[in-house]
Amino acid sequence: MTLLADLLSTVFERRLRPGRAGQRDDRPIADLTTDLIGASGEVSGTTVARNLLSRYDEMDDDAKLAFFHHLARDMNINAPDVHQALEAYEAAHTKATYRAFMQAAEPPRQELIRRLNQVPGATGALVAMRADLLRLGRGVDALQALDIDFRHLFASWFNRGFLVLRPINWQSPAHILDKIIAYEAVHQIDSWDDLRRRLEPSDRRCFAFFHPAIPDEPLIFVEVALTQGVTVSVQGVLAESRKMIEAEAADTAVFYSISNCQAGLASISFGNSLIKQVAADLAMELPGLKTFVTLSPIPGLADWLAENDVLAKPDDDERIRSLAAYYLLDVKQRDGLPRDPVARFHLGNGALIHQVSANADMSEKGIAQSRGAMVNYLYDLARVSQNHERFAVDHAIAASAEVRALAAAARNAAA
Amino acid sequence: MTLLADLLSTVFERRLRPGRAGQRDDRPIADLTTDLIGASGEVSGTTVARNLLSRYDEMDDDAKLAFFHHLARDMNINAPDVHQALEAYEAAHTKATYRAFMQAAEPPRQELIRRLNQVPGATGALVAMRADLLRLGRGVDALQALDIDFRHLFASWFNRGFLVLRPINWQSPAHILDKIIAYEAVHQIDSWDDLRRRLEPSDRRCFAFFHPAIPDEPLIFVEVALTQGVTVSVQGVLAESRKMIEAEAADTAVFYSISNCQAGLASISFGNSLIKQVAADLAMELPGLKTFVTLSPIPGLADWLAENDVLAKPDDDERIRSLAAYYLLDVKQRDGLPRDPVARFHLGNGALIHQVSANADMSEKGIAQSRGAMVNYLYDLARVSQNHERFAVDHAIAASAEVRALAAAARNAAA
Amino acid sequence: MTLLADLLSTVFERRLRPGRAGQRDDRPIADLTTDLIGASGEVSGTTVARNLLSRYDEMDDDAKLAFFHHLARDMNINAPDVHQALEAYEAAHTKATYRAFMQAAEPPRQELIRRLNQVPGATGALVAMRADLLRLGRGVDALQALDIDFRHLFASWFNRGFLVLRPINWQSPAHILDKIIAYEAVHQIDSWDDLRRRLEPSDRRCFAFFHPAIPDEPLIFVEVALTQGVTVSVQGVLAESRKMIEAEAADTAVFYSISNCQAGLASISFGNSLIKQVAADLAMELPGLKTFVTLSPIPGLADWLAENDVLAKPDDDERIRSLAAYYLLDVKQRDGLPRDPVARFHLGNGALIHQVSANADMSEKGIAQSRGAMVNYLYDLARVSQNHERFAVDHAIAASAEVRALAAAARNAAA
Amino acid sequence: MTLLADLLSTVFERRLRPGRAGQRDDRPIADLTTDLIGASGEVSGTTVARNLLSRYDEMDDDAKLAFFHHLARDMNINAPDVHQALEAYEAAHTKATYRAFMQAAEPPRQELIRRLNQVPGATGALVAMRADLLRLGRGVDALQALDIDFRHLFASWFNRGFLVLRPINWQSPAHILDKIIAYEAVHQIDSWDDLRRRLEPSDRRCFAFFHPAIPDEPLIFVEVALTQGVTVSVQGVLAESRKMIEAEAADTAVFYSISNCQAGLASISFGNSLIKQVAADLAMELPGLKTFVTLSPIPGLADWLAENDVLAKPDDDERIRSLAAYYLLDVKQRDGLPRDPVARFHLGNGALIHQVSANADMSEKGIAQSRGAMVNYLYDLARVSQNHERFAVDHAIAASAEVRALAAAARNAAA
Repeated sequence: MTLLADLLSTVFERRLRPGRAGQRDDRPIADLTTDLIGASGEVSGTTVARNLLSRYDEMDDDAKLAFFHHLARDMNINAPDVHQALEAYEAAHTKATYRAFMQAAEPPRQELIRRLNQVPGATGALVAMRADLLRLGRGVDALQALDIDFRHLFASWFNRGFLVLRPINWQSPAHILDKIIAYEAVHQIDSWDDLRRRLEPSDRRCFAFFHPAIPDEPLIFVEVALTQGVTVSVQGVLAESRKMIEAEAADTAVFYSISNCQAGLASISFGNSLIKQVAADLAMELPGLKTFVTLSPIPGLADWLAENDVLAKPDDDERIRSLAAYYLLDVKQRDGLPRDPVARFHLGNGALIHQVSANADMSEKGIAQSRGAMVNYLYDLARVSQNHERFAVDHAIAASAEVRALAAAARNAAA
Repeated sequence: MTLLADLLSTVFERRLRPGRAGQRDDRPIADLTTDLIGASGEVSGTTVARNLLSRYDEMDDDAKLAFFHHLARDMNINAPDVHQALEAYEAAHTKATYRAFMQAAEPPRQELIRRLNQVPGATGALVAMRADLLRLGRGVDALQALDIDFRHLFASWFNRGFLVLRPINWQSPAHILDKIIAYEAVHQIDSWDDLRRRLEPSDRRCFAFFHPAIPDEPLIFVEVALTQGVTVSVQGVLAESRKMIEAEAADTAVFYSISNCQAGLASISFGNSLIKQVAADLAMELPGLKTFVTLSPIPGLADWLAENDVLAKPDDDERIRSLAAYYLLDVKQRDGLPRDPVARFHLGNGALIHQVSANADMSEKGIAQSRGAMVNYLYDLARVSQNHERFAVDHAIAASAEVRALAAAARNAAA
Repeated sequence: MTLLADLLSTVFERRLRPGRAGQRDDRPIADLTTDLIGASGEVSGTTVARNLLSRYDEMDDDAKLAFFHHLARDMNINAPDVHQALEAYEAAHTKATYRAFMQAAEPPRQELIRRLNQVPGATGALVAMRADLLRLGRGVDALQALDIDFRHLFASWFNRGFLVLRPINWQSPAHILDKIIAYEAVHQIDSWDDLRRRLEPSDRRCFAFFHPAIPDEPLIFVEVALTQGVTVSVQGVLAESRKMIEAEAADTAVFYSISNCQAGLASISFGNSLIKQVAADLAMELPGLKTFVTLSPIPGLADWLAENDVLAKPDDDERIRSLAAYYLLDVKQRDGLPRDPVARFHLGNGALIHQVSANADMSEKGIAQSRGAMVNYLYDLARVSQNHERFAVDHAIAASAEVRALAAAARNAAA
Repeated sequence: MTLLADLLSTVFERRLRPGRAGQRDDRPIADLTTDLIGASGEVSGTTVARNLLSRYDEMDDDAKLAFFHHLARDMNINAPDVHQALEAYEAAHTKATYRAFMQAAEPPRQELIRRLNQVPGATGALVAMRADLLRLGRGVDALQALDIDFRHLFASWFNRGFLVLRPINWQSPAHILDKIIAYEAVHQIDSWDDLRRRLEPSDRRCFAFFHPAIPDEPLIFVEVALTQGVTVSVQGVLAESRKMIEAEAADTAVFYSISNCQAGLASISFGNSLIKQVAADLAMELPGLKTFVTLSPIPGLADWLAENDVLAKPDDDERIRSLAAYYLLDVKQRDGLPRDPVARFHLGNGALIHQVSANADMSEKGIAQSRGAMVNYLYDLARVSQNHERFAVDHAIAASAEVRALAAAARNAAA
């Protein structure tokens, strides 16, 4: 039954194989890049590409930075050529003039990156390369354009249509679970036992997006608790002693943690798709599910409170809730969007601020960042488009009556 | 063992699901395209994209043509904007000016196609859309640029690094084999029994490239005969009565047929990679294999002979071989490349003209197109780069001494 | 993702590998069998077993027959030993006496067959060996006991709990489909196109039982048509021009063909389980299905008619139906069970005779065996146990009122 | 690509599904067992079997014991019937008399167990049932025969030919690894990190046998270290700080731990097959491997030393080695086989005592059971049969010259 063999070979060729023996090419890097985008690159491309990737792999940070500057400087667009090609196109809209313009307007480094990607297993290496670029190039003006090129290509390669949603559970391969532990960024996973408590029970789920070209690496994942009623405290979700229920008995899915895994895919947005896809799939599997909410941190709340000398007393839960609601609804950036980054994300996805709770994340981190407060964003698939539209156009924030009332109370108190 | 379930779900979501009930959107197409590339397209994108693809699916050719003209005309670059953005970038190389230029220089229809692709299963639909474009847009100047955009995106999406090489054999799924029968373009497969003779014996192989987003569709495939010595006649390869050998006993791999499967992927070149990958994989599996050759048609020979009133007598095999060698080596297009398209392909890949034979394809088609002559191109992986380089730069054609001598004889006879 | 590799290795080791080089053992067969059941057989067992299987594989029919006689004669129980062991057990019910009795009461050839089965891939070879035995040993009294031993072991090995139900469809591997074509015993499959018409449409299904140790061989399969109302004619089911429906629109599943595949598994009954499992699975997948019937031949009808000089006129359909109902309900073997073997099978499974039709199988075979008549047996899962019970105990035949009335008409006409 | 779906369904149906709603059958157990082996058991079998298994699942130990006594007492052979059937067979060797004898000589409980196994997922439940029997029936004479029946059936069902060898590694599903941790019986696995050190490095391997009907449960597994030269100390194998090597550089495979997983499969021997299969597979994958040894405990050494008042001083390593060699070679049970159970196992498999080492297992357990001594048994596949033969027939123990000399030294010292 060879289909298995086929798929196996697939996976096998994903691993970046080292260059075949004796083919090491020690010419200067610039010669290799020139070769790779040159005419012969079409035929002998993978050999050169493999060599370039191996060379890169051995570089220290200085050498990597030099390599990035080489790409940024020597493989950029040539503005006069672009103007000229564009004028030719304006003069005559032909196949040849359009193609010439498109070629002139795209910096050669984009084609270089595409040709590097011809090597089996290169996709993962290129994602790691961009992670290096983001780390080493932070604040380096000359490298910003290069990152825009990477991002442009990755947005195309990691298009939603190429991603695969997979459940992550206690039957998943250990090396994948290992990465789930490593990448969890919201509520740290302490141990394999902790992981197991989040994966094995019937009322716990986890899903991740994968890309077929880097099948061993989750791109983003979300952890879900299936509950009766909306859960407002993360300690309730994670407690070892909590009462488990049958998945079929749940009426609510609580997305209590969502983590990006790949630094090299920063700004390539998957979260919106992931939440909606998981919600849709769960709704199909478990018709009893009626409500889809997050249980989210309010990472900027404590800082904002501190800045404003508003020292909510820890024992006054109502005051905390009221201030949190006000912060989420009324405190904005200069561009008119909410100051809280998590709020921007979920509201931008079309969610609604459903409920604000005190004493909801009593971990050290939770108290430090938000005085223990948390928020549920509601994903009502029927209203998501409309909410998004109003948020995108008018910066209007959808919120429940209760949350609006809480914010109003804070507003009045302040007045 | 949920990994299987995961992979299954993968495959499942590849199929283009019809829009959920009651969501049909009957607004004019232009409204949908505007929506999809607009701000809200990021969030409600897949719904609109699904709608657009469904609408397209129901269109007749006239409507499709109108749709293509809409993309070509209304979603094109705006030249003055591009000039202006470029000038801003020239004035100051910043992140913002570069991004603005890149955005201006890319026609909105490219982003539209990327957003259409967000729908699970859309990749196949978009390949079919380009097949329509090539069919309906042939010779329509206004649509050439649109095809360049499709081709640009597809070259990125169908990058060698994303393709998967799979053996095709008698254990392969019937619906895949069905397509092998349908797509074989060189030596027609008459029946399932004929197919079986090409797949089941130990000395026959077939390999195809697949893309994970359209797993049910081979992109290109090659059929291989494992032989002792170089086979020069396709009837020998395909004869029902031929003597089979054990794969381990073979010293030569003969690539006797290579077929592209997807009209919508025209000009996205896979053949070069496929031959080299298969040669490398076979060499690893069967260390006895020393020689990798094609057994190829000479499609332009008969026409060229007719044009030149050189009527080789069918019983003079040596004369046929000599003229064929001369045709391959000496007869060029205006650009200096060989007139024969198959020769251009293999020589461009770095192959060498190894042997020319008469009475090698005595099928009706073989006699009509090349008076029964065929040619073996030799892929010597150690010399492929060098051959390619000399062909690309100087149009120099690599050929064996025997073939050069045959061509010389024809040259002398003509003189 | 190594699970795939694991499964692959599974499949790989299923193939019977030839003995390693240089290990051929040319001693007399009886020496090998003695060795294999002897003490050292536990350790060097697989080598000897492999040798024995290879030797068997090369035997002609005479040698095979001699081998079977050797097993039947020389590896039989020893009656005096059995009596003695039994007496010891009667004297003292201990672990040792029970074990000694069990050992004495089992002929050594059973252990021999179990040890042969230790070789990867041997299970299929042993099934083929029994097929030889059934063919060569027919009517040979001395070999009957040997077949009972094979059957005893196979009933244990091919226990329902070890079988796997798989859908067979147009995505199935070609080599499996090839066997479906070969093994279809009721309504011959003429070509791959015919097969496709039975597998690909949404309202056609096929399922087979497989055993993990011979994964390339279906054991038994059933073909199903999903219809609106009960279909009474096989030509209607198989017609190329028939109107297809969506599976979801069907209210009835018609099992129109059920074929055993392995001659070596004769009398190991799978059919009952297969029909009920498929019915249960289809009912879960398609809640619209309310009725599960067969469309079955009446293989003995024409012979019975001929024997009784009752020449039903082909144009009198009612008469045919009436006689067919009478034949199914009233014509019995000496043991009181129905004379018709298909009727015995389905009634023994707890089915009910639902409907009898004329002009239902107008193929040459259909006319020859039953004057074109066919019958629908109804599987009403809620009543199957009760029907079976009454059939098993009292030979009572469940039938619809209509069928009973038809039979009564024939009875009266005869009276 | 439905093959995946097929396999998935396979796995799915392995899980024991609870009886469908409303079918609970509360009759006395004896009624259910009678039903299940009765005539109607063939048809309604799985329903009754499912009920029986569910009922069993809810039983406490007393009820289980009563159930076992019921099987032992009421479903036993009937000796007079067996005598009578045997006499009939002696009088006439016919198919009917042989079948009647076979039926009489097999206790009905064997058929009962086979029919219980018809339920998907039952195999695992039956293995667990035998584990209960072994636990509750220890020393209960009346239940010994029942266990012999279980063992007889399991030996047939878990025949080597039905087992699947799978590598266990860091890509394996977590729930399988969890069981590896739980079942490791020789050198305890302390944590997931410890497990990872045994699975992930290139010079560490692990393999397990699985049965397709209980795919989530390893039956037995072996841990292997690939080394240069024979490793003599388990601390060396397990040390966190050890130097890793490339698998290709190893010349020796050290089997340093082998653990049975299923209490219910006690006395069904897999270990011999496992070691040889793994050795053969590793030899094929890594041609550099020349030596296959175990690194084994000597569990009875300390007790024997204590019994004989021979108090080897811990600082005299040579004395320990000498006594260990003597113990392994010279100290026997009454039946003439070595007293040490691990020695009996490996020598019975045809291995040779290769090397004896002091200070080789300095764990608490190692010191307690063998004063820190360990032994390497050598599996020389070319000599295994011969060694086994001599051990089985003459109780002759194969040992290296060095080990023989060590034993002789102890013998002389004692004399």
